Parts: sequence; C-alpha cells; structure tokens
Amino acid sequence: MCQLLGMNCNTPTDILFSFAGFRRRAGLTDSHSDGFGIAFFEGKGVRIFRDNKPGHSSPIADSVEQYKIKSLNVVAHIRKATQGEVNLENTHPFIREIWGENWVFAHNGNLTTLPDLSNSYYQPIGSTDSEAAFCYMVNQLKLRFRQKPAEQGLFVAIQEITHELAEKGTFNFILSNGEWMIAHCSTNLHYLTRRAPFGKAQRIDDDNIIDFSNYTQDTDKVTLITTFPLTKNEIWSKMESGGFVFFKQGEKVAEILGSPKKHMDDGTLGYQKVA
Amino acid sequence: MCQLLGMNCNTPTDILFSFAGFRRRAGLTDSHSDGFGIAFFEGKGVRIFRDNKPGHSSPIADSVEQYKIKSLNVVAHIRKATQGEVNLENTHPFIREIWGENWVFAHNGNLTTLPDLSNSYYQPIGSTDSEAAFCYMVNQLKLRFRQKPAEQGLFVAIQEITHELAEKGTFNFILSNGEWMIAHCSTNLHYLTRRAPFGKAQRIDDDNIIDFSNYTQDTDKVTLITTFPLTKNEIWSKMESGGFVFFKQGEKVAEILGSPKKHMDDGTLGYQKVA
Repeated sequence: MCQLLGMNCNTPTDILFSFAGFRRRAGLTDSHSDGFGIAFFEGKGVRIFRDNKPGHSSPIADSVEQYKIKSLNVVAHIRKATQGEVNLENTHPFIREIWGENWVFAHNGNLTTLPDLSNSYYQPIGSTDSEAAFCYMVNQLKLRFRQKPAEQGLFVAIQEITHELAEKGTFNFILSNGEWMIAHCSTNLHYLTRRAPFGKAQRIDDDNIIDFSNYTQDTDKVTLITTFPLTKNEIWSKMESGGFVFFKQGEKVAEILGSPKKHMDDGTLGYQKVA
Repeated sequence: MCQLLGMNCNTPTDILFSFAGFRRRAGLTDSHSDGFGIAFFEGKGVRIFRDNKPGHSSPIADSVEQYKIKSLNVVAHIRKATQGEVNLENTHPFIREIWGENWVFAHNGNLTTLPDLSNSYYQPIGSTDSEAAFCYMVNQLKLRFRQKPAEQGLFVAIQEITHELAEKGTFNFILSNGEWMIAHCSTNLHYLTRRAPFGKAQRIDDDNIIDFSNYTQDTDKVTLITTFPLTKNEIWSKMESGGFVFFKQGEKVAEILGSPKKHMDDGTLGYQKVA
C-alpha cells in the first residue's frame, strides 16, 4: 500500500511542514520506500517531481524542500509497491490532459481485474493498477462529456465511475485539476482545514512544531487530505468508507458520507452543498 | 523564437556538457530568457523539469546540473516567447500520452491559424501555437491509428501532418517517445553523432573543453540535435528546410533531405534507410 497527501488552499501555500513529516514515512517512520512523487499546480501548469528512490532520502525530495514552492493544489504520494515494478513510470502521481486541463491523480490501495484499455484513448504507460484506474476514469469521463461539464455533473460522474472501480478492491484516491480537489475513501483518508485563528501544530513523525500564525493571514484557508494524520494536536476528520469530499479554495463544498446509496433519494447521488 | 536541444543515445548518457552551454543562451550569450524545460526519459517514464525563469539562472536548471541524470533520450528547450504568456503551462517541452507511451515535444518557430481543437481528444492546456500544433499532431495520429503502427508508417504519417502544420509558419521541432527521436527543420536545426574514437570538444558559449574519451566506451553512440551548434571543433550537419531525421540508439536510421517532394517517386514519402 501507499500513503497520500493533498493540499487545497485559497492562497498559494507551501506544503513543507506537512511534506517533511510525510516523507519520513517513506523509509524512517514507516516503510513506504518504493518511490515518491509530488505535483504542484502553478496556474494551469504543473511542476511534478518523482523518484523511484525512497522519499526520505531522495535528492529530488531534498530539492523539493529547498524550492519552497507555493501552490493552491498539491498532490503527493509515497509508494509501497503492490502491483508494478519500482520504476519511474509506476510512480505516482499520474497526470493526463483532459479538456485542456492537467489532471493529477494518486492512489492508495489495490485493484484487480481492471477493464481492458488497449483500445481506449487514455492508456497506462506503466504497469500499476493505479494508473490503469485513472486512465479508465478519464476515458469514461471523455466518453460521457466531449466538452467539460459543469462541476456538479462532473462530481456525480466521478462518483459513478469510482463505484465501478471500487468494486475491484481498495481505492483511496486524491484527484485535482488545479481548481478543485476530490478525494475518495475506501479504507483510510483524513482531512482538516486550517483557518483563522491559526495556532501551533506538532508533527507526529518527528515532534517538530510550527506556529502557523507566523506565516498566515486571517483570510487563509488551507485544507490537507492524507492517509493518516500528520499532526498530533489538531482534529482530523476521518472519512467513511465510500465517502467523497470536494474541496475548492481550501473549503469543503460538497461531501458524500459513507456509502453513496444513503444519499441517493434526491437523485443527485448525494451531491450536498455543505459550505 | 526559441532554441532546441535533443539527445538520442545507445547508452545512458548525461547531457550536462551540452546543457551547460545551451542554458547560457537563456540570458547570457543569447536572449532566450522566457523559460526553459528539459525532459529525461527513464524507461517509459519521464523526468521533466520546467521553469518560467531564465534557463541560465533558474534554480531548477541548477538542480538539473547537480543530478547528472543519465538518459537515452533528452529533449530541452529555451524559450523566447512569440505566442502565449511567460508561465509554466506555456513552457516546453510538452508531453502527452499516446498508445501508452509518453511523447515529448519541443518547438522553435511560429505558427498561425491553427485548426480548432476544442472538440479534439488532445487539447492544449496553455496558449502557445507550439502546444496546439503538438496536440493537432497526436490527435491526427490517434485518428489514423487506433493502435500503435509500425515505425515506418508512423514516420510517414508524422511527415504528412508536419507538412500541413509547416504551411502555417516556421516549424522546427524535436519529438521523442523514449525509443526514437524525430526532428524536422524549417529554418535552423543541426545534428552530430559522437562515436569512437572519442576526442575533445570545445563549447562555443564559454570555451569550456571536455575530453569525451574519459567518459565513454568504444561502443557508445551519442547524437545531439540542436538549433545552432554547441561546439566549435566538431562538424555539425545543418538540416535542410523541410528535412526530417529519425534517430534510434544514437544512429540515424532514416532521413528526408529538404523538400519531401523530391523523394516521393517511390511512394514512400522519402523514408530512406541510411544506416
């Protein structure tokens, strides 16, 4: 299995406090040592750094810490391989262009018997179940919507395609197009939103403490989504199995709690405005 | 306009001697200061580094020099913007997945009145003519070949699509799928192949000298393709306008000299085995 980390904000923010703890799990505090990757949206563009070396010791990961890149949307992943060799093409996050947007996807879990993609428009480059699932998802979306649909329709379609894929195994994922961030939980995914009044946080992985009030403005909103909480003194929301969250500008704008069937009575597959 | 640099080899090779001279043109010895990018194939995966800062002073370019990444295929670009803002999504090289392969493309030139791509499978993310031309090319290829065709058919198709696009303006490009490297010349493109016996080379941009015999084996073959020669004591082949080259494993396996019409008598659009 692997671990995921995503950040969605309303102001360009560096993810270094979280990333520094997260990458320790890639060989120091945990064993997710089969490569790491991190993608930073910058406008519609993406800076993506991947390495098949362990995240805790990778020189690429060291550089990422040095650059202090600020971004509205970041997706990171540390890998413990289940399917596919330890090489660059099997390293998350994966990226595809759809409707003229970069979409970035990272997966934690294990899927079996995925559909044949040899005739589809999007095809996996490597040999992971994760990239194949992502290709299946964007291919299905492109078949349903030749042009980019409205956000609600898109979120519902992603839920429907996710349900198909989640039948094949464990499918925790984080997905972003640089505007929004969508996450789905099969087993383990937690999130929190930091907003004013900002205070101190202490990392779980090395006890390091930061006081966010020194780095923030009162209007800032910064959401983190991750497999297991990164700090010990903040309240992380644990997502239910089958749940989805949809964040924009650091705010949760929609959530599906647990099995979507609970929320289908209004015919929207549970697209709930919560903000 | 911009400048291009490509490398295709039969053994993993670092491009640093060439890249160090090339990046000086991005603000020191020339004025291509509107961003740079470099993509290194590693297996089927790609490490890609892009920055909207000038290549000569970019910290990302500094890191690229530190990593000393070895690769069989590298595509690099320094930008002097003609169309599209100076931002990350407009920075070459561009990358798309086709038939389960990463394709990497960099362009020097300026194209006008490109076809509408708003309904096509591949769509540009930024606002450059270059990315639009690349999307048009891969879209046309995907429409012609649902599955990956044989190499000769692919090379002919790329020539045909290139002729369409080259009618719209200047279209020097370097394209690679990690196995082969194809280049097309409208105005300026030069190449050379280094092989045994290896000797010394002196850079044009800062007079630095390297003795390749210290770093090579007799079986090595390393081809460089670039807008203007990078060394002063080696013989670079200047491509003719309308010409194509096709390299694999550091060797030229096919070439179209000048206008393809000269070579169409055998109906193959000039696919000539030259190795």
